[in-house]
Amino acid sequence: MAKITAIIDIGSNSIRLVIYEKSSRFAFNLIHESKHRVRIAKGAYNHGGELQVDAIERALLVLQEFKTIAQSFNARKILAFATSAVRDAPNRSTFINRVKQQLKINIKILDGEKEAFYGALAAKNLLYPLQNCNTVDIGGGSCEIATISAFKHAGAFSYNLGTVRLKELFIDKEQYKEANVFIANTIATKTLPKQDVLVGIGGTFRALSKVLMREQKYPLKLLHAYSTSAQRMVELCKKVEQSDQKVLKQMGIKKERLDVILPGAMILRQILEKSEAKQIVCSGVGVREGYYLYDMLRFQQLRFPSNFNVSVRYLLDTFHYKQTHHNAIAQCAKKLYTTLCQVHNQSVDYEKEIVIAAKLCDVGLSISCFNTHNIGAQIVKSALRYQLTHEQIILISTLIQYQKRKRPNAQAINAIEKFLPKLNHLTLLSLSLAIAKILHNYPLKKQLHSYDITAQNITFNRQDLGAI
Amino acid sequence: MAKITAIIDIGSNSIRLVIYEKSSRFAFNLIHESKHRVRIAKGAYNHGGELQVDAIERALLVLQEFKTIAQSFNARKILAFATSAVRDAPNRSTFINRVKQQLKINIKILDGEKEAFYGALAAKNLLYPLQNCNTVDIGGGSCEIATISAFKHAGAFSYNLGTVRLKELFIDKEQYKEANVFIANTIATKTLPKQDVLVGIGGTFRALSKVLMREQKYPLKLLHAYSTSAQRMVELCKKVEQSDQKVLKQMGIKKERLDVILPGAMILRQILEKSEAKQIVCSGVGVREGYYLYDMLRFQQLRFPSNFNVSVRYLLDTFHYKQTHHNAIAQCAKKLYTTLCQVHNQSVDYEKEIVIAAKLCDVGLSISCFNTHNIGAQIVKSALRYQLTHEQIILISTLIQYQKRKRPNAQAINAIEKFLPKLNHLTLLSLSLAIAKILHNYPLKKQLHSYDITAQNITFNRQDLGAI
Repeated sequence: MAKITAIIDIGSNSIRLVIYEKSSRFAFNLIHESKHRVRIAKGAYNHGGELQVDAIERALLVLQEFKTIAQSFNARKILAFATSAVRDAPNRSTFINRVKQQLKINIKILDGEKEAFYGALAAKNLLYPLQNCNTVDIGGGSCEIATISAFKHAGAFSYNLGTVRLKELFIDKEQYKEANVFIANTIATKTLPKQDVLVGIGGTFRALSKVLMREQKYPLKLLHAYSTSAQRMVELCKKVEQSDQKVLKQMGIKKERLDVILPGAMILRQILEKSEAKQIVCSGVGVREGYYLYDMLRFQQLRFPSNFNVSVRYLLDTFHYKQTHHNAIAQCAKKLYTTLCQVHNQSVDYEKEIVIAAKLCDVGLSISCFNTHNIGAQIVKSALRYQLTHEQIILISTLIQYQKRKRPNAQAINAIEKFLPKLNHLTLLSLSLAIAKILHNYPLKKQLHSYDITAQNITFNRQDLGAI
Repeated sequence: MAKITAIIDIGSNSIRLVIYEKSSRFAFNLIHESKHRVRIAKGAYNHGGELQVDAIERALLVLQEFKTIAQSFNARKILAFATSAVRDAPNRSTFINRVKQQLKINIKILDGEKEAFYGALAAKNLLYPLQNCNTVDIGGGSCEIATISAFKHAGAFSYNLGTVRLKELFIDKEQYKEANVFIANTIATKTLPKQDVLVGIGGTFRALSKVLMREQKYPLKLLHAYSTSAQRMVELCKKVEQSDQKVLKQMGIKKERLDVILPGAMILRQILEKSEAKQIVCSGVGVREGYYLYDMLRFQQLRFPSNFNVSVRYLLDTFHYKQTHHNAIAQCAKKLYTTLCQVHNQSVDYEKEIVIAAKLCDVGLSISCFNTHNIGAQIVKSALRYQLTHEQIILISTLIQYQKRKRPNAQAINAIEKFLPKLNHLTLLSLSLAIAKILHNYPLKKQLHSYDITAQNITFNRQDLGAI
């Protein structure tokens, strides 16, 4: 697989370019994202699905631009696929051939089931482990549903329900009731599995999740893996259905989404209700990542090796000096943490997190060796993304920030308190990492052969710990 | 020159290990710093300069530790030198031979003039350009003075004045007056050139500068290149001379420096007064960096190529994807900025800064392509260090932070306002970078062939700018 890969996703509403950089066999990172609201489906739904001439011209211009950008990143591969609007268009081959001739880009058409499958593949591999859920990707022309059951793919299908489609067929004509009936009837054509957890993919879901995050003054600026009750999302959808554009703007909906957020909210609400969802999870990844992973993991039964974290590995590949050294710190910190938990009669709940924090504690080193802890915490908060909950990301970043002399105190962690273990447990974690660092960074400093930790004055024998 | 180089500096007060990473021919960064207050001079001044047995043992233990750390970074070279205490010691060869035998480390003894020269070499090359100044390095055993005149080295010498020396000879016996007389007499033995600017090197100067920064709630956490009036420093020295340990602690002096800050302040005050300094500049670099640069720049007449910035190059080497692309953005931003300045009748004062900001605008890309501007600004604020003023660092970081849609506003820049150009000029700079980025990142977006900039509605022709 090429080091830099560009993927172009020709959706019914927007065309997107994403560029991934691979840092090692399974580790990658998104390094560029461009979006143009080309709305290739515009005018199609009232003309038998036919792509309109000006829509094709807009798409060609944007594809040319995306090709230039991809080349400027030295992308070795440019993969392009199209979904609902193009696959439904009687004149799709005209468009595809022009792109092939003019730009030498081959567009692959994904059928609805495949599209749903890729979305679910990305969510399954790049969100924290989800045992059972539906993934729902509301697009401009169609809506893809896939089910994960006992951590496994368990079916996928597509509804011809999309934001642009509904806008053109009903909303532009102010036929709101008819739109809701159309949605209900379309959903009824296939069996929508009931699942407690609904994973949302796509622009509509992201835009609405952003509103919910803003509403609760969420402390982490990360949509991917944001989770809340389905009830809150249903309420928000209802509110959107009753709001005019001015109110929507005040809620934080961006200008370019204002005209499709209403049909999006209508579709989402009915799906949430029909599938009896209790909890929602926002996925920052979808069909593009799925398409990429399908290639990367094709000899891996479409999953990552166990105990592998994409973001952690990417950071280690990109920023690291002394991997063996940090593996030793990680093992030592884990041992200290479990020992302290025993002594204090607490359960050992965060082994994975302390190990990741220890491995990444010096990612800020090449930026500043004086400020490694602060800049490291910033980097980790911005770059850790995949396969972790927000609680895990915040805990890891907090441990990195307090890896030196200071321990976290109630005031300092006030804004993120709900995401963290109780302060006394957090102190155990933070102490364990700080001591492990000292033991390994100053291997001969005499006074550190033993170390006072609590009022009970536990003494650790350095040699033992060093030999782990 | 090796990629990773470790330098061990055996001072009279502390022994330090620094590790530099080279990223290309002249670019490097400090990636590790360890310090032990070994105080190898302890007891020597009352025993004819003889290094004491326990001091030698402490030093050996620490050197062994430093060697282990250097090896853990895969340092290919370990360079070690010693200054005042060792060079003055009649039994220095005992110490040097033991280190050679036990640790296979060769210690080079620097004479006072060489020590002063290395300090000045570092300051001259790694601070912003200084036409005329004295560099003053107050150490544990000696005090090194060098003069830079018309940007050139113009003499160096050493006083046998040091913090540990004075502590042992006078302060421990509470002979404060005698100490001041001793300092005055020692200074009088050599001609101390009068210079408006005094560049301070070493722990005493850094500790006192930190107090001054705290006092004025300085917005940047960077000692290197911090500058203020000599008057403020003289006042602070006087205050230190009148304060007990409790007050010193409240002022922010660290525990391990409490017992030598008084003699340090006494020496510094007299030197400031005798040299008639008006302005002080704190140097974060000194003899260690000078020693390193002396090797790196030996075929370069001991200076960097013109228009070369160590920190910028290091960041580009370490974080960069698309250098040609960013060079083009830089040229375009510069052109836009100068054009806008002409139109608005403002002088073109920040060409260098906008070029650096443009080159570094995407350093945060590998961490987060959504948050590149914020994380980039953070990185730059922490990692830009050498050859720039704080005003330049803050401006560059601000331009990177506001490289997207938002322009800086008065409220947002409130804390750093004094360091920045006036808001209307800052807006020109920020706009220029933002537009240059759009023009180069979206090369084909039609509506950008011309661009409204101000009320006067200037139109830029994209093709022209693209071809620069």
